[in-house]
This record gives sequence, C-alpha cells and structure tokens, in this order.
Amino acid sequence: MAHPIEELIASADAAIVREDFDALVDLYSEDAVLVVKPGVNVAGRPSILKAFEAIAEYFNHSVQVRQAGMVVLESGDTALVLARTVVSAARFPSVTRNATYVFRRDSGGRWRCAIDNSYGHELLAAAEHG
Amino acid sequence: MAHPIEELIASADAAIVREDFDALVDLYSEDAVLVVKPGVNVAGRPSILKAFEAIAEYFNHSVQVRQAGMVVLESGDTALVLARTVVSAARFPSVTRNATYVFRRDSGGRWRCAIDNSYGHELLAAAEHG
Repeated sequence: MAHPIEELIASADAAIVREDFDALVDLYSEDAVLVVKPGVNVAGRPSILKAFEAIAEYFNHSVQVRQAGMVVLESGDTALVLARTVVSAARFPSVTRNATYVFRRDSGGRWRCAIDNSYGHELLAAAEHG
Repeated sequence: MAHPIEELIASADAAIVREDFDALVDLYSEDAVLVVKPGVNVAGRPSILKAFEAIAEYFNHSVQVRQAGMVVLESGDTALVLARTVVSAARFPSVTRNATYVFRRDSGGRWRCAIDNSYGHELLAAAEHG
C-alpha cells in the first residue's frame, strides 16, 4: 500500500494540473513554506495560493506535474520526502527535479506539507552564486 | 550570524571527528532516524550511537566530516537543511554528498535533528535498483 503521504502528493499534483488551488493549499500547513524558485520563498496558504496562480498564468495554464520516484523517511510526526518531480508545460521542455518535501502530522493524524522545495540542492548553487 | 542549526551541525561534525558519541546523540531527537547507508536506517538515540561507533570502527577511527555549503528552510518548528557534506577518512577518497537534514524545535526552543539523511537522493537510486 502506498504511504499516505504519497497519496497526498498525488492529490496535490492533480490539483495543480486542474488548477484547483483551494484544494491544493488545504494540503499545506498554515505556516508552510514554498520555494517558488531558487532564492524566492513564500510562506502561508494565501501566499502559496497566489504563487500557484502566477505559475499557472506564466505557463499559460498548461502545467503538468508528476512524481517519477519517491522515498519517505518518517520520524514521529515528521516526514522527509525525496522525490523525482517531473514538471512540464506547453512549449517548455520537461524538467526532472530532485525535490525535497517535509510533511508534519497534526494532532488529528493528518499529514500536511510544511516545506515544499521542488528544487532540492539547486538552492545551494543559487546561494553560492548570489 | 549563522543560523542556530548551522552551529548545531558544526557541533555534530566536531563530535563525530573526536568520537564523542554521547554529545553527538544529544543533538538528535529521541525518535530520530539516521540513514546509515542507502536502504539501511536506524531510529532512536541508542541505535544511532551504535551506528556511529560502527562507522568509526569501519573507517579505522579516522572519519572527517565538514559542510561545504548549506541552506536552511524554516517553517514554524520544522526546518529542512540542504547541505554539501564532505566525508573523508584515511585511505578512503573524499566524497561530497547532497545531504538532507530535518530539524525540529522542541517546546524549550531547542532544535534537534529528527531525520539525518546525508545521502540525499541517492536513496532513490537504491530503491529503484532494489
């Protein structure tokens, strides 16, 4: 059986593709952080929603996202996901990212994404080159 | 000023090098998970201590570890660290890993490592090749 977090990520990918951003942000914790691109982060559901709207607009409402592999490491109510995230859009070449996601389980037993960094270690290159 | 987690990781590296494993495991949460190598995880301080003792023995008490770059992403009491971790030992070539660490801040305000995966996305390759 798939880890419940794998199912949540599949739901998130589907919500991105159909641009259901209300359903999407419900999968994030209230103070979640999203890396929009290396060096640019937003925090909190309203800002995450706006960022996904802007991304959809930028890619002319054609974003496709799927996971080509995933490992979940769990410690109590915290989990780290290492994923190969494949992002594509009309007239943009498909890219595969070594993504890192952190999930937290709340007191009701529900996992939510607390840190969404689909760029993985690309952040380090961005930080090094200022 | 360095992020407090950067200082904790520097303390952990120093404790590994001088083989002070009691000081080292105090930097981990009680139910922390350590990836010993891809596909082999241990959980909890006593098991983490034993794993570091075995690693020290395997490398003939000559392990050196340092961070060659680091980014910290923080969301409330959870933080994701993306690091370039350089590990070397006598008669072993130096390796640089794209490491991923998750820290949690406890009610006393103290950060501890909950998930220690110095192998980053190498876990995916290991999972794919069984």
